Amino acid sequence: MSVTAAQGFSAAGIAAGIKENGNPDLALVVNNGPRRAAAGVFTSNRVKAAPVLWSEQVVKGGEVTAVVLNSGGANACTGPQGFQDTHATAEKAAEVLDGHSAGEIAVASTGLIGLLLPMDKLLPGIEKAAAALSEHGGEKAAIAIKTTDSVHKTAVAGGEGWTVGGMAKGAGMLAPGLATMLVVLTTDADVDAPALDAALRDATRTTFDRVDSDGCMSTNDTVLLLASGASGITPEQKDFAEVVRAVCDDLARQLIGDAEGASKDIRIEVVNAATEDDAVEVGRSIARNNLLKCAIHGEDPNWGRVLSAIGTTKAAFEPDALNVAINDVWVCRDGAVGEDRDLVDMRFREVRITADLAAGTESAVIWANDLTADYVHENSAYSS
Amino acid sequence: MSVTAAQGFSAAGIAAGIKENGNPDLALVVNNGPRRAAAGVFTSNRVKAAPVLWSEQVVKGGEVTAVVLNSGGANACTGPQGFQDTHATAEKAAEVLDGHSAGEIAVASTGLIGLLLPMDKLLPGIEKAAAALSEHGGEKAAIAIKTTDSVHKTAVAGGEGWTVGGMAKGAGMLAPGLATMLVVLTTDADVDAPALDAALRDATRTTFDRVDSDGCMSTNDTVLLLASGASGITPEQKDFAEVVRAVCDDLARQLIGDAEGASKDIRIEVVNAATEDDAVEVGRSIARNNLLKCAIHGEDPNWGRVLSAIGTTKAAFEPDALNVAINDVWVCRDGAVGEDRDLVDMRFREVRITADLAAGTESAVIWANDLTADYVHENSAYSS
Repeated sequence: MSVTAAQGFSAAGIAAGIKENGNPDLALVVNNGPRRAAAGVFTSNRVKAAPVLWSEQVVKGGEVTAVVLNSGGANACTGPQGFQDTHATAEKAAEVLDGHSAGEIAVASTGLIGLLLPMDKLLPGIEKAAAALSEHGGEKAAIAIKTTDSVHKTAVAGGEGWTVGGMAKGAGMLAPGLATMLVVLTTDADVDAPALDAALRDATRTTFDRVDSDGCMSTNDTVLLLASGASGITPEQKDFAEVVRAVCDDLARQLIGDAEGASKDIRIEVVNAATEDDAVEVGRSIARNNLLKCAIHGEDPNWGRVLSAIGTTKAAFEPDALNVAINDVWVCRDGAVGEDRDLVDMRFREVRITADLAAGTESAVIWANDLTADYVHENSAYSS
Repeated sequence: MSVTAAQGFSAAGIAAGIKENGNPDLALVVNNGPRRAAAGVFTSNRVKAAPVLWSEQVVKGGEVTAVVLNSGGANACTGPQGFQDTHATAEKAAEVLDGHSAGEIAVASTGLIGLLLPMDKLLPGIEKAAAALSEHGGEKAAIAIKTTDSVHKTAVAGGEGWTVGGMAKGAGMLAPGLATMLVVLTTDADVDAPALDAALRDATRTTFDRVDSDGCMSTNDTVLLLASGASGITPEQKDFAEVVRAVCDDLARQLIGDAEGASKDIRIEVVNAATEDDAVEVGRSIARNNLLKCAIHGEDPNWGRVLSAIGTTKAAFEPDALNVAINDVWVCRDGAVGEDRDLVDMRFREVRITADLAAGTESAVIWANDLTADYVHENSAYSS
């Protein structure tokens, strides 16, 4: 269903020849209106890929007619030529979509950093994609943006008479302030750009921003939300925001479930924190501890590494009041040995760590992955 | 030569039975005077092991007669009982060393977090170690503090008529604010506690504090510097500080060279930074980037991952002015593709990354390791 689940959108996914193996590598998502409102959230990495620099400006206008997405190359760290290539991509899409300006075309790219895109393949690919546009093209678009993803990711939810659909790619470099993820969400709700922006920021803050696969932040992260207004229905902002959040949450969970080389999905819940910021800081610190990630991979409920990670933060807590549960067994109580660690069953893919800071009433959930030999293998061989 | 290279010190390393495999696990270092000045630097982790809490207090007094070090258990996250055990360890050492108070005995522990030490073995071990004390015991002491270290680490340097010697252990959890490292340095220079403290803080700041093997900070890090004054010589503070720094630098380099599962030692030099703090922040961010660490393991000069790591910092720089060299080949110039990456020869264990921020004149060097399947293996099996 993906980005064409909502009325007023068409999409396509084709093989333009950017990837040498001939797999699909170019997606086009078009908003057919009547409304063309849009909002976007982008990487907070200060080294931003050309398409991010471009699309940030496009989204500021509040109107997006189409999104061109390519896998097979990130167009990051490519200098002035890279930016010109993104511009040419938008120009080409505007041309084939007749009557639109390049300033309404968002561009997103993913793949290896530091390589120029093969424009001799990409530009004809846009014509091919435009010819393939379909109201049922969402699935193919989702497939065309995959890099090391083992599966394509889509999600759909909605209210009475209106729908939010989306697609995502990402399988590594998943980290705060987003991750190498490209996400396009669409809705036929009749919502203007400021309302879209509010809903999207609220949703990403507690979903994509709390996914931390490997602590590495990408240069290319892009999350777009486009509204066609085709349903003619304007939902309550609260209801709309909640549905956008649900779709983001679903896609974020799929990203963690497909992280490169991972064998475990780790749900880290920090409870009884003094502030939500404290909870997030502690959750991230646990999520990024390589020693703990290795232990989880080995199905070892090594709570000492959890405490050691908490101890590196500035959050409010007393060391001798900390409690930690792994899969609901409180292996650490009052900063020391708690229940028998042999009671912890870690055979399943999902592992739940609960860190109780005993310092307040706030909480947060961060999702992470374990660290495996497969992760090392995939990422030491990526560019070769 | 280790801690007995300097006059006025005796040491021992024995097997007390703390380690189940019967390997040496208890070291004793004694300052025989005439002076017994001391300084210490400890982990900045807020979750501190019992021996750290104890020894911090001991060092504040400025006098240390002896150090008891054990491997085979960290005595961290062990609650009130753990602290009592450390206290009992110091009491026992004071008793067998005749005429000294427990308040002059520093204690350091390393091994698994969350387990109480077997005091029925440790306390008799102290008697055994005291009986084995020798002016040539430095090597054995260095061996007894090993955990997953493949070799023991010692270093010696000095000036005219005076010497600084030291031993270190550590093979993982090496990170800023120190790392799971236990280090004891000794000198026969006639230097008081404030001068020792100044020299030690200055030395650790640019040596042990700039080693980042895996981004994980230990609960037990301890670096002690003891002065016996036995040479009768008081060097210029500048000369003394430089020799202490040289010994720390030597030991820090040995720690990186023996990091768990590593196949590469990565020297990250950040140059032309606006401030030294900026240089250190950027160096650490590069040092901790798992994707880059995997690429280095795969001998892949993936400079895009260097830029992506720099981009997550708050340091002063312009993305399109960044330059990166790997093993002296400037693969990235002005934030984009530079020299041919195929020119980079990465066959050797040492890999040099130079990041030029083009924003000032300050610089810093951080040492790190690659991320390997062996690291994952060692750390997923550590406690089982």
